[in-house]
Amino acid sequence: MQIAVLLYDRFTSLDAVGPFELLSRLPGAETVFVAAEPGPVRNDQGNLALVADRSLAEVTAPDIVLVPGGPGARQAMHDETILDWLRTADATSAWTTSVCTGSLVLAGAGLLKGRRATSHWLALDDLVPHGAEPTGERVVFDGKYVTAAGVSSGIDMALHLIGRIAGDETAQTIQLMTEYDPQPPYDAGSPDKAPAEIVAKWRTKAGQVTAAGR
Amino acid sequence: MQIAVLLYDRFTSLDAVGPFELLSRLPGAETVFVAAEPGPVRNDQGNLALVADRSLAEVTAPDIVLVPGGPGARQAMHDETILDWLRTADATSAWTTSVCTGSLVLAGAGLLKGRRATSHWLALDDLVPHGAEPTGERVVFDGKYVTAAGVSSGIDMALHLIGRIAGDETAQTIQLMTEYDPQPPYDAGSPDKAPAEIVAKWRTKAGQVTAAGR
Repeated sequence: MQIAVLLYDRFTSLDAVGPFELLSRLPGAETVFVAAEPGPVRNDQGNLALVADRSLAEVTAPDIVLVPGGPGARQAMHDETILDWLRTADATSAWTTSVCTGSLVLAGAGLLKGRRATSHWLALDDLVPHGAEPTGERVVFDGKYVTAAGVSSGIDMALHLIGRIAGDETAQTIQLMTEYDPQPPYDAGSPDKAPAEIVAKWRTKAGQVTAAGR
Repeated sequence: MQIAVLLYDRFTSLDAVGPFELLSRLPGAETVFVAAEPGPVRNDQGNLALVADRSLAEVTAPDIVLVPGGPGARQAMHDETILDWLRTADATSAWTTSVCTGSLVLAGAGLLKGRRATSHWLALDDLVPHGAEPTGERVVFDGKYVTAAGVSSGIDMALHLIGRIAGDETAQTIQLMTEYDPQPPYDAGSPDKAPAEIVAKWRTKAGQVTAAGR
């Protein structure tokens, strides 16, 4: 089983590495980071580069496609090289997946039309023009299309997927070996749970960014 | 505030990238990945390389030191270049931290003597010969030394640290923006919670690896 993780400029690191860390432990999995060209690809903050070991042209039929989000998703969702690759890979994939605004890239490729999907809570509305039905859920399965909410949610998505692919015992083993027994000291991880003034502040900021056309 | 994330051959990716993703969002933080030499450093599975942008010699006084774990920690904990760097950095750091078996590297540098600390659940006993007092807790603070349990626990550690450094509102904002609202589909993330037969199997395997001197 081959798992391809797509990289593009200004992706968010944990979107990619979270689910990668768990999915790549699937028995028999071969995981490969891919980008338009092989080599280092820099993250959204500019302070970390992950190396794409293969070009898109070299990896055309992965069993699992994983698309991370990040500010760069707004460019990637209009990048024909990436969109063509996604459509080709999707034609034979067993699972086509995304984390955070990675769902916008899938949507840009036309893959979420008429499907339920999720994204970062500040980006859910941006799925609508592409024919997807946004939901605020953390992990959304619609057939072979699996989308996760913001950044850290890709870890939960990976565990769900591992369970479906290899069964509960394998998923529990991988959860144990990665000690995924979350104990956050705050309960502010979703707009429903975070203090209302923080949520309002960031909704306003996001609106200003959108209005400025960025 | 400068945050240095140490890389060495066969580190575990999520150990580094999980806490990095959150800590690097601290207002005013400059985060840098460091290794003996700048350039790509490959992970434990050999399927991902992260780029160290600076050599150890270039980054000698970070405010926060973060040491990930991984199978390579067993070599790193005896690597004098790494240990010298850690002792130097620790002399002026505000926080010296680790995830998973990264605590063995701190212990190898003599930094955990007489201190409470944690590690991956299969490596807790290995802290004892270095004078540390292992605890099964997920995140352990002992003065400025902060250690986290296996792999994914670095995310919780980061949130704790952000709260101490910048206050609850900043921590809650970063939790919200990374949507860290964990909803794992299984409850098997610690040896106390996972099915007993899975825990026993992996304790046996780990014992065999230790007996074989690997």
